[in-house]
Amino acid sequence: MSNKIIPVIMSGGSGTRLWPLSTPAAPKQFHALATANSMIQETALRLVGAEYLAPVAICGRGHRDLVMSQLEAIGKSPQGVILEPFGRNTAAVAAMAALAGQEIDPESLVLLVPADHVITKPRAFHDAVMAASETARERIVTFGITPAHPETGFGYIERGEPLSEGIFEIKKFWEKPNLETATTYVEGGRHDWNAGIFLFSPQVMLEELSLYAPEVLAACVDAYKKAHRDGVIISLDEEAFGQVPSISVDYAVMENTSRSAVIPCDIGWADVGGFAELWRLGEKDDSANHVKGEAILIESQNCLIRNDGGPVVAVIGMSDVMVISTPAGILIAPLSRAQDVKKAAEAAKERRS
Amino acid sequence: MSNKIIPVIMSGGSGTRLWPLSTPAAPKQFHALATANSMIQETALRLVGAEYLAPVAICGRGHRDLVMSQLEAIGKSPQGVILEPFGRNTAAVAAMAALAGQEIDPESLVLLVPADHVITKPRAFHDAVMAASETARERIVTFGITPAHPETGFGYIERGEPLSEGIFEIKKFWEKPNLETATTYVEGGRHDWNAGIFLFSPQVMLEELSLYAPEVLAACVDAYKKAHRDGVIISLDEEAFGQVPSISVDYAVMENTSRSAVIPCDIGWADVGGFAELWRLGEKDDSANHVKGEAILIESQNCLIRNDGGPVVAVIGMSDVMVISTPAGILIAPLSRAQDVKKAAEAAKERRS
Repeated sequence: MSNKIIPVIMSGGSGTRLWPLSTPAAPKQFHALATANSMIQETALRLVGAEYLAPVAICGRGHRDLVMSQLEAIGKSPQGVILEPFGRNTAAVAAMAALAGQEIDPESLVLLVPADHVITKPRAFHDAVMAASETARERIVTFGITPAHPETGFGYIERGEPLSEGIFEIKKFWEKPNLETATTYVEGGRHDWNAGIFLFSPQVMLEELSLYAPEVLAACVDAYKKAHRDGVIISLDEEAFGQVPSISVDYAVMENTSRSAVIPCDIGWADVGGFAELWRLGEKDDSANHVKGEAILIESQNCLIRNDGGPVVAVIGMSDVMVISTPAGILIAPLSRAQDVKKAAEAAKERRS
Repeated sequence: MSNKIIPVIMSGGSGTRLWPLSTPAAPKQFHALATANSMIQETALRLVGAEYLAPVAICGRGHRDLVMSQLEAIGKSPQGVILEPFGRNTAAVAAMAALAGQEIDPESLVLLVPADHVITKPRAFHDAVMAASETARERIVTFGITPAHPETGFGYIERGEPLSEGIFEIKKFWEKPNLETATTYVEGGRHDWNAGIFLFSPQVMLEELSLYAPEVLAACVDAYKKAHRDGVIISLDEEAFGQVPSISVDYAVMENTSRSAVIPCDIGWADVGGFAELWRLGEKDDSANHVKGEAILIESQNCLIRNDGGPVVAVIGMSDVMVISTPAGILIAPLSRAQDVKKAAEAAKERRS
């Protein structure tokens, strides 16, 4: 039996919460946010080892060239790039990952990873993948992140009975909780953050999709079969893909199947969901400013300053604000208003159209 | 006797307090700040009437093309453009204005006006010029602005005995006062803001310079005689001009001569010395924001937003700040820190060099 793992990188995010850094033309996964390389590059680079085959990427049609060039630039040329004509949520992505995995090597495992997450402990992540690989022959394994604080922005996975050392059945998936509930989760020690990372056998995923989301699977199989192929590019058939119900893999499969498992792990995971996280994750100067690009700071503290190639940014006497300058726009707001950035992104989009 | 008036426009400011709108290459007088036209254009345009001859401009060498093109664009082609190789303060400017006036028409009067001031009541200004023209045959007339508030950023002129209806001898020039002193000035009703505008006969100015600033006059005459001429361009001789002592006309002449006068007037005058004034003078939206250029404001008040051709500026949840985006830089600061803008301008300059 093959012990190969196919990294399948989900690169579907549109990232309006990080506008103007992230734009529809180049969402956040294509930018170097907390690191030297772009997030999709970091995602590919952290999967090193003889077990990993060349990656497969799943992305929107408009991002084909970005995905190809960014992965080639780091010597991680993809063996497949599946182009979605439009987004159809993660059940469709899981189905495509399973179909591609089955085509490449039915005996392999698929490691389905978002392109826009930070993992600061790649070694620990690799160890968790290795530890889960046996279980992943029979079950869809999710990676549960030991919660660092009672976060209300993530879903949680409640552990069930142990399956083996460090791996558990899943008792229940929980939606984003309120602060009180999140606090009981953290204190109870049986709930982990749902990072949206999956390790599975293509066959198992296809079987569970056929049981719990047969319409998704049928339409995906059709779109995949009718895809236009050009080298590694697999351009899904638009009409067939339009028939795929838009539903998450959590909701369609994970909450229903008994063939699931969770491996709690501490891998330095973070979802750079907004600028507040970016400031928190970034390196700081002595005044707790995170500065990237050409900038002049005078008597300013706790600021996030990003200048992506624009004229010099000068900030005088400001605290707790973000200033983001890119060719797509210039954003100024208190870091506490990071959740309202999408309003500006939408207004900017309307203005252009 | 000629009743002609030659407007001589002083365009020497470097305007670091308005960086990055104002830069060494294009200081504030070349920008449309509070109005549709640039400040130097507004300065030329407000002097309409049969009395006014074509203007003369005095500027730095590097601004020759800007001065020519901006004045030609509004049909105010200058009859002379005097190029200074470097700045030598306003006594030299007054001397050059007098020399040019004498050359053009010794019987005319020179109206020496800064290129970077706002005058919202041009009709009242014209009336004041007319009212002062008789006195200006014998005296250097300054325009005293009725103070609107106890401003500590300007010098004041104290009136002496009346010379004629509405025109006074000058008792004393006062440096920028503290708030207490400024308050007594405003309450006393005998002090006016010194706007740095002068009306004089070329002959009178030359006589007073020869009495009180003979070194300035001698070096200026030398530099003017040796100037390289090309059409209307008078490029002052660098070596000779280098011999001119750097001193203000107030300090060199006005504080010493008895041949002076002040005409108090209410002409809607403002010195756009910094961004706080620009916000105060500008049109506001319902939330007291002054916005020029492409911008998105969300829940923001009392802001000054200027976007000179850059990508869209989005401001969320900010109050009392300025955001200035130009190809030379992007500035973010509280409006209350407007006086510190020159620090950023200097840092930006150092960075480039």
